[in-house]
Amino acid sequence: MNTSTSFATTITTSTDGTNDPALRSWVASAAREAGDFPIQNLPYGRFRRRGSGEPWRIGVAIGDDVLDLRAALPAVSWPAPVAAAMAPLADGDLNAFMALGRPVWRATRAALSAALAVGSTAQASLAPCLVSQAEAEMTLPCRVGDYTDFYIGIHHATAVGKLFRPDNPLLPNYKWVPIGYHGRASSLGVGGDIRRPAGQLKAAGDEPPVFGPCKRLDYELELGALIGTANEQGRPVTIQAAEDALFGLTVLNDWSARDIQTWEYQPLGPFLSKSFATSISPWVVTMEALAPFRRPFVRPDGDPAPLPYLDSPFNRAAGALDVTLEVWLETAAMRAAGAPAVRLSQSNALDAAYWTWAQLVAHHTSNGCNLQPGDLLGSGTLSGPGAGQAASMLELSVGGKQPLLLPGGEQRTFLADGDRVTMRAYCQAVGTARIGLGEVSGTVQAAAAG
Amino acid sequence: MNTSTSFATTITTSTDGTNDPALRSWVASAAREAGDFPIQNLPYGRFRRRGSGEPWRIGVAIGDDVLDLRAALPAVSWPAPVAAAMAPLADGDLNAFMALGRPVWRATRAALSAALAVGSTAQASLAPCLVSQAEAEMTLPCRVGDYTDFYIGIHHATAVGKLFRPDNPLLPNYKWVPIGYHGRASSLGVGGDIRRPAGQLKAAGDEPPVFGPCKRLDYELELGALIGTANEQGRPVTIQAAEDALFGLTVLNDWSARDIQTWEYQPLGPFLSKSFATSISPWVVTMEALAPFRRPFVRPDGDPAPLPYLDSPFNRAAGALDVTLEVWLETAAMRAAGAPAVRLSQSNALDAAYWTWAQLVAHHTSNGCNLQPGDLLGSGTLSGPGAGQAASMLELSVGGKQPLLLPGGEQRTFLADGDRVTMRAYCQAVGTARIGLGEVSGTVQAAAAG
Repeated sequence: MNTSTSFATTITTSTDGTNDPALRSWVASAAREAGDFPIQNLPYGRFRRRGSGEPWRIGVAIGDDVLDLRAALPAVSWPAPVAAAMAPLADGDLNAFMALGRPVWRATRAALSAALAVGSTAQASLAPCLVSQAEAEMTLPCRVGDYTDFYIGIHHATAVGKLFRPDNPLLPNYKWVPIGYHGRASSLGVGGDIRRPAGQLKAAGDEPPVFGPCKRLDYELELGALIGTANEQGRPVTIQAAEDALFGLTVLNDWSARDIQTWEYQPLGPFLSKSFATSISPWVVTMEALAPFRRPFVRPDGDPAPLPYLDSPFNRAAGALDVTLEVWLETAAMRAAGAPAVRLSQSNALDAAYWTWAQLVAHHTSNGCNLQPGDLLGSGTLSGPGAGQAASMLELSVGGKQPLLLPGGEQRTFLADGDRVTMRAYCQAVGTARIGLGEVSGTVQAAAAG
Repeated sequence: MNTSTSFATTITTSTDGTNDPALRSWVASAAREAGDFPIQNLPYGRFRRRGSGEPWRIGVAIGDDVLDLRAALPAVSWPAPVAAAMAPLADGDLNAFMALGRPVWRATRAALSAALAVGSTAQASLAPCLVSQAEAEMTLPCRVGDYTDFYIGIHHATAVGKLFRPDNPLLPNYKWVPIGYHGRASSLGVGGDIRRPAGQLKAAGDEPPVFGPCKRLDYELELGALIGTANEQGRPVTIQAAEDALFGLTVLNDWSARDIQTWEYQPLGPFLSKSFATSISPWVVTMEALAPFRRPFVRPDGDPAPLPYLDSPFNRAAGALDVTLEVWLETAAMRAAGAPAVRLSQSNALDAAYWTWAQLVAHHTSNGCNLQPGDLLGSGTLSGPGAGQAASMLELSVGGKQPLLLPGGEQRTFLADGDRVTMRAYCQAVGTARIGLGEVSGTVQAAAAG
């Protein structure tokens, strides 16, 4: 495992044609101008027909539809290796597919791309295997054994650090260590209703602390990476091999209870302030689909070079990704008035992230820690450097001191019950198809009684 | 789930006779004087015959043997509800059994106790189902979805705090919040070889940091609790119901790389300094077996009372446990010389732990976080207040400044390659059978090359 170096040398060249922007699908909605899911994307998700008792199965998003792989597997004569790889997908087991490794992922992608392309002889057989996304109930795309949350958004770390240490916002380790911590896997979901947590709160000067509903509920906009292939415990993954361990990306909302966090987090870090819920978008966009958006990894002038275990020629040349990220807010009042959601921020991973995914995999395993198929890595909050690029309310409201003014006269420092937060991510660049990562939405519910 | 209050009112009374110290087993070794596994214990573990290709199955330790439940299920006419409960155990799935809840756990324990007792008609049928523990290969007793490590050892927290803040060792939240953080589940095991991790190290004054093998490798002696029944996300478990969620206890070694920890842990807590390995003893001793060792939960005079969500009459009366804990060290030189291991510490959970397990469950779920069958809670390092009671080398060597003198003239500040650390825990009191939690051993291997 993790011994192939083919990915690193071929990832940007797209020799199989699946990234060709001229490619068109016979699924008409896949050609929609600003759609997330053209034929160049082909992300995986786990679904069933809403309200059905069907078993969960893996599907591939295409335009406004999902190709149901449980139905598609027997409908077409797939190449034998692809049929074998699709068997766990038909059973709803993305983890087993993830464990098969990049050559199999690529062969499957190529077969799906060919089958969905204009002119495919499989069109008549596969058309009945499409389910409208509007009719699909989504769940987590895979079993997440362990979830790790990093802190690679340097503008976020700087802004949050400034709230505590105006003259010295970044801690001395920040530019050397990809800071991260273990998160809670059991409370991961794909959004929906998010109950406001309760916890111990202690405002400055208050004594003793009180137990009650969180008053400073926040979101954090992140990207999530899902691990494909495992490494054995005690066997670090080199940065050269790290690219091959990465299966794909998703959008992540790291819901955060700021007041619980302030009181609990010394000395061992965030715990109950985070573990009540974490949401990810239901579609995993593969690293293959993201290949056209690879960019050089560049450090600002004067910043230290990464230590050798976090450095490689490929990482320097193409370790970073150009992904646009947005947060939208719809309050209960907006919803009642039929008013549209308002965009709170727009940022880009390219200038928000201080480390690359390959660096995170290499760092995470550098002590021998074993990653497993389906493990989730969060990036940390990806705020940009400018106005309108702050990817949490803590930053937008400067620690709760400057309320945001919303259309219709509402104000927010943190989230109110009924607020619906939607995060979106997408890649677009000249000469390539637009690749969307879908969206993740959650609506804040009142705290439990008592 | 978690609605029964029967456990809290009956746990100390042992009405089913399974804790009766007069009870004897037809397995002769179960009567051994200082043995861990008398008939009053009956802990669960997952095993197979060493070197066999057998599937993993759950067994019950009795004396020097294991009762193989895969073999025992069809060998005896168990009461129908017990046979149903034992089916997943025969298949090696302790999690499914844990999810069944306390009434089923109790009925199964009563049936196993009766079948293993002197005079049982099942003796002839079950005797062939015994496997010597010496021939058993053990693995993790259950799938651990999430692992949370707490920090409830107040003497440890005080001693470590003193290294940084001599005048103010405990942070202001310590006596209010059961401090904890998410741990890494994938690298959990039952001991054996533990590879020394590498990582970023930065001694004071060094610039830049370097990447290399950990120089301050340590152990931490903890208890671990395994969760039985689940709670739904968004539904806290009250402290009254929390006892019923607890399945049993194990011994835990939270291997720690102190130098990696020092450089990485600000601001989000320990990460790679812990995630390379965590070891637990392979036997889960049930809360039923521990019932005779329940003790009042008492706070030192002048300390604040727990907030109401962490307080109950039962918790005050019997929330604490009297468990003796020991760490033993055998160096490679001792092993070569045939010299016995040396005991480094002996402490007791009763005066080491500042919170009870029920308080940890209530706190962990107070924000709506969902616990699942098989989840693991670590106590944090359970050092006692006195000399010889420090449960980590960091404390024993006062931050690495005062070497430990070992028999044979060796010295240690932290662990050397070849050192074998063995942790043991047991309960004993007048008028009860001794209940052992078994042991967990790990031997430090040299860091990976390169």
